[in-house]
Amino acid sequence: MCGASTCRWRLDPGQTPEHITEVLAQCVRLSGLRASYVEMICTRGQPPWGSRDPRQAVNQFYAFAVPYVWLANAEQRENGLHLQISDVQRIPPSSVDPTAKNYHWNDMTMGLLGALDSGFDSAVLVDAAGHVVEGPGFNVFCVHQGAIVTPDVGMLEGITRRTVIEMAQSLGLPLQCRALPASELREADEVFISSSGGGVLPVTRVDGRPLGDGRPGPITRQLVASYWAWHADPALSRPIDYAA
Amino acid sequence: MCGASTCRWRLDPGQTPEHITEVLAQCVRLSGLRASYVEMICTRGQPPWGSRDPRQAVNQFYAFAVPYVWLANAEQRENGLHLQISDVQRIPPSSVDPTAKNYHWNDMTMGLLGALDSGFDSAVLVDAAGHVVEGPGFNVFCVHQGAIVTPDVGMLEGITRRTVIEMAQSLGLPLQCRALPASELREADEVFISSSGGGVLPVTRVDGRPLGDGRPGPITRQLVASYWAWHADPALSRPIDYAA
Repeated sequence: MCGASTCRWRLDPGQTPEHITEVLAQCVRLSGLRASYVEMICTRGQPPWGSRDPRQAVNQFYAFAVPYVWLANAEQRENGLHLQISDVQRIPPSSVDPTAKNYHWNDMTMGLLGALDSGFDSAVLVDAAGHVVEGPGFNVFCVHQGAIVTPDVGMLEGITRRTVIEMAQSLGLPLQCRALPASELREADEVFISSSGGGVLPVTRVDGRPLGDGRPGPITRQLVASYWAWHADPALSRPIDYAA
Repeated sequence: MCGASTCRWRLDPGQTPEHITEVLAQCVRLSGLRASYVEMICTRGQPPWGSRDPRQAVNQFYAFAVPYVWLANAEQRENGLHLQISDVQRIPPSSVDPTAKNYHWNDMTMGLLGALDSGFDSAVLVDAAGHVVEGPGFNVFCVHQGAIVTPDVGMLEGITRRTVIEMAQSLGLPLQCRALPASELREADEVFISSSGGGVLPVTRVDGRPLGDGRPGPITRQLVASYWAWHADPALSRPIDYAA
């Protein structure tokens, strides 16, 4: 049995979704961590010696719990990230389907290295048409005159991106999923990113240019507050019985 | 100190070329293998806990010797490989530089899976313009009216590809490095691939269509013979002192 991403890559973790859920809960319980980041990974594994047939590879499943991972540190969460629009193009969907989760990230890593070297906090990559798609570990959003825009193709349909879309609907904020030219990101009133490593994270500069008044904007702050309210909502959580 | 590919990825194996050469020779010597395939790998490694800065990652160097790896089995070497021109596009140079060796191969792996499912022996990928570039672990060549053609961009500049170019010069065979449309591969008199896993390997069908008389062609056979003659030439080899 496999999920959408593993099916796309023709990988089989060899576990039911119910069992994987239980394994992840066990990882958190055994770690004792109260603020934990859990991850599950399926690898291709190796075919028998001498074979180069990936169909004969024995897929492997891994899961772990670690202290909660923040994509942005406390200062960046308070004052906003400084993003560079990278000149590295994101690998196109015709080569590797970005909607299927993967760590096939040399493009992301080289873009991140260039951004860090130039004093930025992270990078966002573009496609061949110059549209912003995603960054290393996050989806990207901008706000223009009260309306939120996020790319619709060429990027991971991240679970936290989906949460942002659901929060916008819940809060009555207009949100469009469409192509996002790099120039529109540079000239936005607000920019934020979404990641399971921190939820909604403000961006206050793109390519060095301050956005709005240079502080995290009102819609970004509203979504950050909503994210953590939802995060604490028992209806959206799975309790861990640490005493078990 | 780093080589061309590791420099391109901003990796440092932390070893001089001379020491790496010695390590590889040691791998072969210690294995006792008389027909061995040696490989060296440099990985990014991990940054310190909590950091997402690839510049802080501690790069790792690995090397190993295994029994000689053949990209094609004995029957395929005798009768020729059946290649499929994949509909998976090779990751473009604007995303990941293919001239810098890497195993960033999801595109190659998915193309190979599709080809194997359809009864082919392997796949060759194309670029966005429909030009053939490379396959999983090999460069590709075709012969038209006595002239050899191989792609010039979008693929690894493989060491065995270079050997083929040098052999063609040595044998007085005309060879062009230029864009190679998929249609030209399908309609070639001969096709062969090059790999450190087998040298020059004949291809006798592309997309199911037999090439020439359906047998490995004369220029391919000449280059196969030349490859193994060069392989056995002490001037082009490094002796291993197994008794040391």
